[in-house]
Amino acid sequence: MSLSFTLKKTCKDTMARRGRIETPHGAIETPVFMPVGTQATVKAMTPEQVKAAGAEIVLANTYHLYLRPGHELVAEAGGLHRFMNWGKPILTDSGGFQVFSLGALRKITEEGVKFQSHLDGSRHMLSPEKAMEIEQTLGADIIMAFDECTAYPAEYNTVAAAMERTHRWAQRCKKAKARDDQALFGIVQGGTFADLRQESAKAIAAMDFPGNAIGGLSVGEPKPLMNDMLDVTTPLLPENKPRYLMGVGSFDCIVDGVARGVDMFDCVLQTRVARNGTALTRRGRVVIRNATYSRDFSPIEEGCTCYTCQNYTRAYVRHLIKTSEILGATLLSIHNVHATIQFVNDIRTAIEEDRFAAFKDDFFANYHN
Amino acid sequence: MSLSFTLKKTCKDTMARRGRIETPHGAIETPVFMPVGTQATVKAMTPEQVKAAGAEIVLANTYHLYLRPGHELVAEAGGLHRFMNWGKPILTDSGGFQVFSLGALRKITEEGVKFQSHLDGSRHMLSPEKAMEIEQTLGADIIMAFDECTAYPAEYNTVAAAMERTHRWAQRCKKAKARDDQALFGIVQGGTFADLRQESAKAIAAMDFPGNAIGGLSVGEPKPLMNDMLDVTTPLLPENKPRYLMGVGSFDCIVDGVARGVDMFDCVLQTRVARNGTALTRRGRVVIRNATYSRDFSPIEEGCTCYTCQNYTRAYVRHLIKTSEILGATLLSIHNVHATIQFVNDIRTAIEEDRFAAFKDDFFANYHN
Repeated sequence: MSLSFTLKKTCKDTMARRGRIETPHGAIETPVFMPVGTQATVKAMTPEQVKAAGAEIVLANTYHLYLRPGHELVAEAGGLHRFMNWGKPILTDSGGFQVFSLGALRKITEEGVKFQSHLDGSRHMLSPEKAMEIEQTLGADIIMAFDECTAYPAEYNTVAAAMERTHRWAQRCKKAKARDDQALFGIVQGGTFADLRQESAKAIAAMDFPGNAIGGLSVGEPKPLMNDMLDVTTPLLPENKPRYLMGVGSFDCIVDGVARGVDMFDCVLQTRVARNGTALTRRGRVVIRNATYSRDFSPIEEGCTCYTCQNYTRAYVRHLIKTSEILGATLLSIHNVHATIQFVNDIRTAIEEDRFAAFKDDFFANYHN
Repeated sequence: MSLSFTLKKTCKDTMARRGRIETPHGAIETPVFMPVGTQATVKAMTPEQVKAAGAEIVLANTYHLYLRPGHELVAEAGGLHRFMNWGKPILTDSGGFQVFSLGALRKITEEGVKFQSHLDGSRHMLSPEKAMEIEQTLGADIIMAFDECTAYPAEYNTVAAAMERTHRWAQRCKKAKARDDQALFGIVQGGTFADLRQESAKAIAAMDFPGNAIGGLSVGEPKPLMNDMLDVTTPLLPENKPRYLMGVGSFDCIVDGVARGVDMFDCVLQTRVARNGTALTRRGRVVIRNATYSRDFSPIEEGCTCYTCQNYTRAYVRHLIKTSEILGATLLSIHNVHATIQFVNDIRTAIEEDRFAAFKDDFFANYHN
């Protein structure tokens, strides 16, 4: 068995739960936030900085690594863990969402997705079998099924067809998967239609993957709608397997997801807004780039134990951002990743101590989006 | 006394020497390579990474910090050391070279240099007194006199006039300097004219600064000419004070400078070429960006003990550079700074063991520029 999940505690007021995932590269306590390392690097951070920020697992991306440097080169390097110097667990997504995002550059058929590289226009094909081949060659601990995501808004029939194809593709992925040391997760689709989400959750659950993901959310729909979809989806996903809400990772969405039984989150938000000069805090975003912080000699977030907050002021970080110094992106990325992981750690403790509902209320009382 | 220099050993074959500088923020073994942190950050590196690369002192720049974030803001932050989280020695240059480099945007008079900011065109004035005020407000351990650099090539009379003004400005800097915990270094000018270099060395030496710098070299002149100038300059600078060759830091120039009695070097080369995908090694430059390294799973430099060479391959670093990932700049900067400092450390050992001349010959036998 390449992956095991232990459910350590459930809550009475909400669906929040505390668990532990075991993988060949180590354990992951859940709920967990997974920093994204799209191109085999969490942007602007060394692996040591990612570890020091508390990360137990990182993501990497099949679409990007297939194009550059190529999955076979990564295998020659000894696999993704060794290539990127990250000895802990890794999850790769299948590239489904990325080729879907290419718009006019891709064409979807039952076989798979023909697409042109966003880099050089070269023509390629991703299919369930090809995605499995690439993900197996990369060698992550958790690999994702190749799915068809739909945009928001989309017509019911379009979403239903994509969902049904996603289910057929999930079966093909399951069949194509060969490595015993990797765990394949299925992905629920269904857009913003409750009945489709339910149908998809049942279909994916029935395929008995070691973990189940919820895809196609946080793609532009209003936030209450995302919560509505989670409300009808997670109860239909098996309790004894981890649930992963893909591409979601703002503080508020994490709390809302945990309350609805989600165990795993990932997001590029932390490092993306960092490069733009914005810090994430429990009270909301702080645009450090703003002139108001030019003479603010306090840390990014009072009480934060991250490397950045322990050693630098808002004024210094603002100076770095204003002068386009790389260290600015690094220091804010460190803070944003650390702050998110620390936040999730505190959620774990709240669940363990049977006070998650109160934690959630306190959080929203102070948080400004 | 804010600075003391101990000459620990001299050579018989060359002018190479081994020494130690004491400053209020710690000791510096010489010869020394000083990484450049123009805007109060060594580009793409944290202070811990700079320390781990072996740095004992870093540079910062008066012109840049005066414009952004402003020297008074740095003082409010508790001074430059605290602002940038660097507890070891710092040297600031005076801004003379930077305003000189502004070309049409600056006008030099006896009073000083009127210039327009390269950022917003705003008008400013730097003078010996103003440079001292800024450098004292920043609070580095070693501060540089405000000098007038000349371009290469330049007419004899132009160079002579700039040199004479540099001497008058050096006297004004000395008079304006007030802080006891900072050491002011004078700067020799004289372009590529041996008699002017000698005249300048004598004039600056006579002013009895605690250290003496050689400016206006490595500004485009052929390398043999730089060595010729050093040959006539360093013998006229006091033996019991450190000698600093400004803006020079390639491996070959360091060896040539040490052989001519230089103790201190600084250069932006290490971090600049890193961001462009080039590694510095003892055999010459390695353009990691090149396709030839795409499947090269060896370290940047065989035998190097830096963090990058211990943990990553050329193939991975090339992937990062090709995909414009910030970590690529960081990993190559770490290597380039570490490799240069390790090289200078080996020079120190060679001097101590009376084999610097052989070290120099071996180096040039293997080095390709």
